[in-house]
Amino acid sequence: MRVLVLHGPNLNLLGEREPHIYGSQTLAEVNEQISTEARQLGLDVQCEQHNGEGQLIDALHAARKQYAGVIINPGAYAHYSYAIADAITAIGLPVVEVHLSNITSREPFRRKSVTASACRAVVSGLGASGYVLALRALAGTLEK
Amino acid sequence: MRVLVLHGPNLNLLGEREPHIYGSQTLAEVNEQISTEARQLGLDVQCEQHNGEGQLIDALHAARKQYAGVIINPGAYAHYSYAIADAITAIGLPVVEVHLSNITSREPFRRKSVTASACRAVVSGLGASGYVLALRALAGTLEK
Amino acid sequence: MRVLVLHGPNLNLLGEREPHIYGSQTLAEVNEQISTEARQLGLDVQCEQHNGEGQLIDALHAARKQYAGVIINPGAYAHYSYAIADAITAIGLPVVEVHLSNITSREPFRRKSVTASACRAVVSGLGASGYVLALRALAGTLEK
Amino acid sequence: MRVLVLHGPNLNLLGEREPHIYGSQTLAEVNEQISTEARQLGLDVQCEQHNGEGQLIDALHAARKQYAGVIINPGAYAHYSYAIADAITAIGLPVVEVHLSNITSREPFRRKSVTASACRAVVSGLGASGYVLALRALAGTLEK
Amino acid sequence: MRVLVLHGPNLNLLGEREPHIYGSQTLAEVNEQISTEARQLGLDVQCEQHNGEGQLIDALHAARKQYAGVIINPGAYAHYSYAIADAITAIGLPVVEVHLSNITSREPFRRKSVTASACRAVVSGLGASGYVLALRALAGTLEK
Amino acid sequence: MRVLVLHGPNLNLLGEREPHIYGSQTLAEVNEQISTEARQLGLDVQCEQHNGEGQLIDALHAARKQYAGVIINPGAYAHYSYAIADAITAIGLPVVEVHLSNITSREPFRRKSVTASACRAVVSGLGASGYVLALRALAGTLEK
Amino acid sequence: MRVLVLHGPNLNLLGEREPHIYGSQTLAEVNEQISTEARQLGLDVQCEQHNGEGQLIDALHAARKQYAGVIINPGAYAHYSYAIADAITAIGLPVVEVHLSNITSREPFRRKSVTASACRAVVSGLGASGYVLALRALAGTLEK
Amino acid sequence: MRVLVLHGPNLNLLGEREPHIYGSQTLAEVNEQISTEARQLGLDVQCEQHNGEGQLIDALHAARKQYAGVIINPGAYAHYSYAIADAITAIGLPVVEVHLSNITSREPFRRKSVTASACRAVVSGLGASGYVLALRALAGTLEK
Amino acid sequence: MRVLVLHGPNLNLLGEREPHIYGSQTLAEVNEQISTEARQLGLDVQCEQHNGEGQLIDALHAARKQYAGVIINPGAYAHYSYAIADAITAIGLPVVEVHLSNITSREPFRRKSVTASACRAVVSGLGASGYVLALRALAGTLEK
Amino acid sequence: MRVLVLHGPNLNLLGEREPHIYGSQTLAEVNEQISTEARQLGLDVQCEQHNGEGQLIDALHAARKQYAGVIINPGAYAHYSYAIADAITAIGLPVVEVHLSNITSREPFRRKSVTASACRAVVSGLGASGYVLALRALAGTLEK
Amino acid sequence: MRVLVLHGPNLNLLGEREPHIYGSQTLAEVNEQISTEARQLGLDVQCEQHNGEGQLIDALHAARKQYAGVIINPGAYAHYSYAIADAITAIGLPVVEVHLSNITSREPFRRKSVTASACRAVVSGLGASGYVLALRALAGTLEK
Amino acid sequence: MRVLVLHGPNLNLLGEREPHIYGSQTLAEVNEQISTEARQLGLDVQCEQHNGEGQLIDALHAARKQYAGVIINPGAYAHYSYAIADAITAIGLPVVEVHLSNITSREPFRRKSVTASACRAVVSGLGASGYVLALRALAGTLEK
Repeated sequence: MRVLVLHGPNLNLLGEREPHIYGSQTLAEVNEQISTEARQLGLDVQCEQHNGEGQLIDALHAARKQYAGVIINPGAYAHYSYAIADAITAIGLPVVEVHLSNITSREPFRRKSVTASACRAVVSGLGASGYVLALRALAGTLEK
Repeated sequence: MRVLVLHGPNLNLLGEREPHIYGSQTLAEVNEQISTEARQLGLDVQCEQHNGEGQLIDALHAARKQYAGVIINPGAYAHYSYAIADAITAIGLPVVEVHLSNITSREPFRRKSVTASACRAVVSGLGASGYVLALRALAGTLEK
Repeated sequence: MRVLVLHGPNLNLLGEREPHIYGSQTLAEVNEQISTEARQLGLDVQCEQHNGEGQLIDALHAARKQYAGVIINPGAYAHYSYAIADAITAIGLPVVEVHLSNITSREPFRRKSVTASACRAVVSGLGASGYVLALRALAGTLEK
Repeated sequence: MRVLVLHGPNLNLLGEREPHIYGSQTLAEVNEQISTEARQLGLDVQCEQHNGEGQLIDALHAARKQYAGVIINPGAYAHYSYAIADAITAIGLPVVEVHLSNITSREPFRRKSVTASACRAVVSGLGASGYVLALRALAGTLEK
Repeated sequence: MRVLVLHGPNLNLLGEREPHIYGSQTLAEVNEQISTEARQLGLDVQCEQHNGEGQLIDALHAARKQYAGVIINPGAYAHYSYAIADAITAIGLPVVEVHLSNITSREPFRRKSVTASACRAVVSGLGASGYVLALRALAGTLEK
Repeated sequence: MRVLVLHGPNLNLLGEREPHIYGSQTLAEVNEQISTEARQLGLDVQCEQHNGEGQLIDALHAARKQYAGVIINPGAYAHYSYAIADAITAIGLPVVEVHLSNITSREPFRRKSVTASACRAVVSGLGASGYVLALRALAGTLEK
Repeated sequence: MRVLVLHGPNLNLLGEREPHIYGSQTLAEVNEQISTEARQLGLDVQCEQHNGEGQLIDALHAARKQYAGVIINPGAYAHYSYAIADAITAIGLPVVEVHLSNITSREPFRRKSVTASACRAVVSGLGASGYVLALRALAGTLEK
Repeated sequence: MRVLVLHGPNLNLLGEREPHIYGSQTLAEVNEQISTEARQLGLDVQCEQHNGEGQLIDALHAARKQYAGVIINPGAYAHYSYAIADAITAIGLPVVEVHLSNITSREPFRRKSVTASACRAVVSGLGASGYVLALRALAGTLEK
Repeated sequence: MRVLVLHGPNLNLLGEREPHIYGSQTLAEVNEQISTEARQLGLDVQCEQHNGEGQLIDALHAARKQYAGVIINPGAYAHYSYAIADAITAIGLPVVEVHLSNITSREPFRRKSVTASACRAVVSGLGASGYVLALRALAGTLEK
Repeated sequence: MRVLVLHGPNLNLLGEREPHIYGSQTLAEVNEQISTEARQLGLDVQCEQHNGEGQLIDALHAARKQYAGVIINPGAYAHYSYAIADAITAIGLPVVEVHLSNITSREPFRRKSVTASACRAVVSGLGASGYVLALRALAGTLEK
Repeated sequence: MRVLVLHGPNLNLLGEREPHIYGSQTLAEVNEQISTEARQLGLDVQCEQHNGEGQLIDALHAARKQYAGVIINPGAYAHYSYAIADAITAIGLPVVEVHLSNITSREPFRRKSVTASACRAVVSGLGASGYVLALRALAGTLEK
Repeated sequence: MRVLVLHGPNLNLLGEREPHIYGSQTLAEVNEQISTEARQLGLDVQCEQHNGEGQLIDALHAARKQYAGVIINPGAYAHYSYAIADAITAIGLPVVEVHLSNITSREPFRRKSVTASACRAVVSGLGASGYVLALRALAGTLEK
């Protein structure tokens, strides 16, 4: 079973960007951690990162036929991209939204996620291990 | 006389995506229907679809010198893309906005179209035939 | 097949009232244009104009048994008449809302149409030819 | 003792209009039920229905000298007609507002009743029997 | 020179309705006071009162060809009737809005007048003598 | 058939607390009046009063298996207790909300009832007789 | 009987400042016109102009013992100076607020006057003759 | 290491209450599932459920000295209980908030969690397995 | 003369909870300080602390017959508990609200106190000595 | 140790202005009461009153080098003067804000104090004795 | 060519007031820096500072005939002084608004400048060198 | 020292797009002007223009290691692109935002810049010379 992990804008700078908020692991290290967990769960995981809204929509569309589920960290797009939300709804796959930090305890604009409404579940504030837990959650769902 | 038809994000999934809202015609079928009508009206029509906000702006800019009018379905960008709205104003062509569903009877965030303010007219809720009517409307305008 | 065209408040002054916004055709001329198109489409069209909210509701109710569809330009009532919106829902006919000007690019209060939510479709900003296109759209719907 | 029952816009379609919300009794049947109850309470009841805001105000004014109390279902006017609210205050009679459905559990715009503020009491969500209870309540008040 | 004085909803109850707010003069007495002043100013004044929004719009339309100016007290319609506001704009005459009470010191909903925006001037809180002053103001304008 | 009457916070002070708003009957007297009516309707009524939000939820839960319907006056909890609203929904019984005063004509915060949205009906402004009418309404519903 | 006319900020530039909005009369000319009218009405009028909020409050306080009424054009302070509003209430004299332009048809921030709520009446949109009418109105009030 | 699992209002009805939203497992079954997982993680888990806001605060306080971390599902209190939020902050333990359903895709009032802001992380929409993942997340944190 | 001091939710953790905001005195020490002052003022003071909203309402009710005045620190309930506000109004005693920190300079939600509106006075930001000053203020009031 | 007491706009009218709200003591009497208390506390107090916003800022600036603390009643400026708030922050002295009436139970605009956010503490609703208590509070602070 | 530099409230404390936000240069030093630059640009510069709103308006008025342009730092008045905004519009000179700090990244109330709307340009966040750049910008404008 | 100048959406049409707002210089000419100034300041400047949000983020990321500072005109993205704001924060370079027109005096949506909050400074309304001044400002900063 295949799962796509989609990292949104600015996540390529992970580890260097505001480490007090986002942690000091690089994206490569996070992806490695996700892959290790995936192997243990018997899942085939693919990780991608895009800064463009259209690129993320393209990636979601491409996932439609090739993956059984998606984990997305839409970054700041979570707060205004109805186009990504529509893409999540359109592809009909189970999607889990992950945020590294607890978005409810930061700036007001980060408290609302318009993409989360289109997802099945949201995990926020667990740092990189949020991806791992989302993977587990998705694995549980996909097995059913 | 040439008219550009611009389809925005997620419209490439037409026919597969929430058919109870967006209908069961594919984008190719819709484009075919538009082209047929265009031929009858003596118009030369070009159809494009892009998921990226920047790509749609690029396409609008490119239309400036090559087309006499534009029909745009900005999809969810309609609700927040002031950049596309600026592009519509910037190119100075008559632009008609089309929405397949009646956006005023859906979720609150869909009730406001920031791109529509920059357009000459809006057609919403007529499904694929909305494009055809917009084409007619534009033809009438261009003839004057 | 019979279609009712309902013009709302102040539309009797068409052609004289702010022609830079609403055009210079009189209501009689607009109605004539609608009738011509109707004949071509094989539709039997009746045009009425009322300034009163109750009169428009009465007319919608009367249409229930006698018409197959309605085109309504609720004028300013569009922005607050939940009673007309309820009437549109109550009669169960396909109704298309038409506005001469593009209401999304005018004063803030005109950007929201509470009656449009009860309609099947909205055509806005095409001047008098908006009625003609609505008629075509309705004809297409009624044929199905 | 005389009581006026005033039905507002679209209530003439009762029984045919969205019966899952408003029930399947016609207005004539509801009025009959009200009259039966009135006779038992020794009240002289008059039932009227108007779609126009001005007509409802006229009816309220006329009630001033001829009735001891009023039951009003202002329909959708409840949500914006400050003119009807003023009329209720102006006539100085005890007025009870009745809504067939529970307006607090429907669309946001129905949750606020501006006319209710001018009334003595509100009964909402009890279907046609709401009128009967309002009659009883009014009878109790009038007796004092 | 002819001036129309239009009284809106509930003003027929003047003198009886909340006299602590609206004063104890009846509408007939107010109209008499207006007429007396008009004669002194050499104006031909006509006074009408309507409870219906549509009737007020009709009256405004009728004034278009027959009067040189209008004084309107839209009553509660002032707070939401965009249709009356459109009628005021549409007829192109100088219109002065009068309120008996000072609407800025009453309930919040009365603080905004949507019809006033379409008028040339507003007089509020001067009781019945507000009409007289509006007449004078209009006379001054019409003379120029 | 058994009905639970639940009085919320501060209602134990009835008769002593702001009698110009809430009347001069004590809670015991109101309960007596409810019981008398219940006996006439052949209903078995139980009256409870709690100041605590959790206690009211507990009481609603306990009613689930033992009562056929509930009448609740949530007092000020009506305006913010989503937890009580959830409890009303959760127990699946017909629930009627009663307010002694007309909450739509008091302070702004009292105009919205979040618990009412979860109820079948609302009776507001009829004083203690509101409970009696709610009982009748519930009796009618339960009989069906 | 003495009346104080208080001109607020920027009114000293009258005649030079945006004459399309405020007219081409200078403040001296306006004051002359007011004085002429005052003499005819047998009133003793004093005109002052201040740009400072504190100066206007000082002037209102000083008026308390020396004048029978005040006419104030608070200029832009009307839209936020609760301190001036408090001063108007504190002095207990009849105060009429005058605005040269119709503030309800200008920028949104000008539509609310917080000082007007503390005044007896408001005259807006009549240009300089608004002061004259306010004087008349005040004269009528003072005579009673 | 000890972890407290706190279930808030109405969760005692789990399995019976709106199973299409909250699933068909009872609270006992969910707690059993949590305990099983806890044993595997070598954690000592205690599960409590309270309908009262004060009881939940008491439980949080009691946890301060006895537990290393807390998992809380505040139910509807999440949306308004600043008192619980303060308690979470006050005890200084790592707290993870769990919601069975995805609260961002339900009624507007559920989209904001005021308690979540005081927590370290939030897991929403994963049903009962959300607790298990939160336990894992907490275990990871506590180990560090 | 007897005065009740009511401490709301989380105040039992005083001295341990965020001492940079709430100070390092424990509740026992604060109560001791209050009692000392009370003795000097010749007042009989009783201190209670409750985490439950219902418990605080119960305590307020109990105070009605036994105390001459109340000092309440409603903690976070201040920001939403209309039920406690109603209880304060219902008991008819002079009540002074105390907050340890200056609530106007903290998070937005803390800036509004709905209970304060029902109190006679508010003291905020003076730490524990705020209680002492409130006691003095109350003593002054009670003596009159 | 020196303390400045700053009275804001309209407080010079104390005793004459709305005595039901602000009490019947004159400002001179209040200042006398403050001075008496100051002498007992061994403080050197100076009282000033200004109606101008700039004057209050000037006075605050002047206090910077000459006083150890400030008590300010900003009157209505409390509700909008960010300039005074900035001045309070800028001078770096402990400042206590006093309001004679309980501003949370008056008009909505009085419920927010923008200057209070810059102060150390707020005392509201204790009439003139609020100043005395603020003096005590400040004395306590200054002694430390 | 003469340019007026107007410093608003609290800027006289520059260098002493929150230096982490506003820098450690005193106003005299800033003015010296401005003058040096002015000499290089061949401009005749005058610097003034006022804490009063009315004084700033007076200074703007005085500038009308004597200066070719104005640089203003309205301090906190920027956020609410429509009177200063009106003065800027009234004098018809090119005015550039300068803020030392980047007002868009501070408290919410500082993000809106009502005076900036009346200015030709805004420079924010460049510290004292913002004045120098504004001077250059103005010099460029004035030369044309 | 190297500086990147980033032009956002629609700026490629400069000189042709609404010249009354944005001026008649083309982007090439503006870039030329910037380069000339850069040479004088001894800076190495690179100018890019992108219509896509993702492209702008990519460009900001790329600047991180290669430039000492950035000047950005985010065009309409300024008003909603939290993703670009995050990128600005993430790269940790000094960034100055430039707008050709004064965005505070245009449509309401343009008055808020979400990207400006992440920048060090903002220059708005100075046309193309705004870039030059920003360059100077940045040069000053970089030198320190």
